[in-house]
Amino acid sequence: MAKSGLLIIISAPSGTGKSTLCKRLIADLGGACYSVSVTTRKPRRGEVKGKDYFFVSREDFKEKVNRGELAEWALVHGHYYGTPRDFLERNLKRGKDVILDIDVRGAAKLKKMYPEAVSIFLIPPSFSELERRLRGRRKNSEKSVKKRLKNALGEIRRIKNYDYLVINDRLVDALRELKCIVVAEKSKVKWSKEKIEKVGLL
Amino acid sequence: MAKSGLLIIISAPSGTGKSTLCKRLIADLGGACYSVSVTTRKPRRGEVKGKDYFFVSREDFKEKVNRGELAEWALVHGHYYGTPRDFLERNLKRGKDVILDIDVRGAAKLKKMYPEAVSIFLIPPSFSELERRLRGRRKNSEKSVKKRLKNALGEIRRIKNYDYLVINDRLVDALRELKCIVVAEKSKVKWSKEKIEKVGLL
Repeated sequence: MAKSGLLIIISAPSGTGKSTLCKRLIADLGGACYSVSVTTRKPRRGEVKGKDYFFVSREDFKEKVNRGELAEWALVHGHYYGTPRDFLERNLKRGKDVILDIDVRGAAKLKKMYPEAVSIFLIPPSFSELERRLRGRRKNSEKSVKKRLKNALGEIRRIKNYDYLVINDRLVDALRELKCIVVAEKSKVKWSKEKIEKVGLL
Repeated sequence: MAKSGLLIIISAPSGTGKSTLCKRLIADLGGACYSVSVTTRKPRRGEVKGKDYFFVSREDFKEKVNRGELAEWALVHGHYYGTPRDFLERNLKRGKDVILDIDVRGAAKLKKMYPEAVSIFLIPPSFSELERRLRGRRKNSEKSVKKRLKNALGEIRRIKNYDYLVINDRLVDALRELKCIVVAEKSKVKWSKEKIEKVGLL
């Protein structure tokens, strides 16, 4: 267990800045990797296949589910999303930290499956700021903004199922807090057997 | 609960550099304070009454115990040490973090009494380094060094009762790790009710 990487589950209402923070966190941690989800939704402008998501058809998605290739999957905003199990477990076993950007239902399923995982919920500094950020995304229609705001409130009620809560007001502060959580988690005594042996104290 | 300060329990074998680290941590955290213990041992050179310890006679110590003024007390290396309850609880209630430098037995008692407390065990980078540091203290006799080394091994076996383990190799790294633990602890969802209310999301 001591050599295993840390599974870091991050959830946030759409518009919180989760993707940017996850990318910066991976860059800063060094040796961490991002769990690329499979989805049936269409790519947004700038999204790269295999880097942001694996974009598949509904048929392909169902096949993956049937073959047990997904650690979890869910229907969010009318699209299917899933987490490839093999990538996750292979990297954790190699001692690499894996960051998973996922919705509240997926997070709950993963935490059950991997109880050693750390779950973090990101929130915007205020509800009005969230609304402003969502309206700032040109591709979001009025209907889509309203749907996302309603979903945000539903998701935030699930915070109690998470280990940590981080407010993304200034990106640099939120990033620092995320890095501290990773450092602290790795200082937990449950990961320390190897540390103590190295020191030669036992 | 959200407004309460964090009780930070720190234990370490004698010679690990605990006192220096605790002082630096308090200076860096801002708003934190140090729980000054009561002891029946004689002051070491440079130790200040009311700042490092309250030095009392065995009779005075026993009276404090009888009046229930100590949150915990114990006999360590032949001397009595105790934690004044009033100072601790008053500061926590005011929202101040309190740092408690205490041996493994005292830590266990306090953790039972204050389950929300965070407990951290500090270890030296190696056993030989611990021996070198203890011999470097001129006031330590050969007998005292051997006793402290034996005690160190006994204490280290209690690590599993702690939340975190930090290696004090380079002071600056250990300090950074301690600060991260405090930041992460305060990001825990159990402290978040106030945070969420402030954001206006619930």
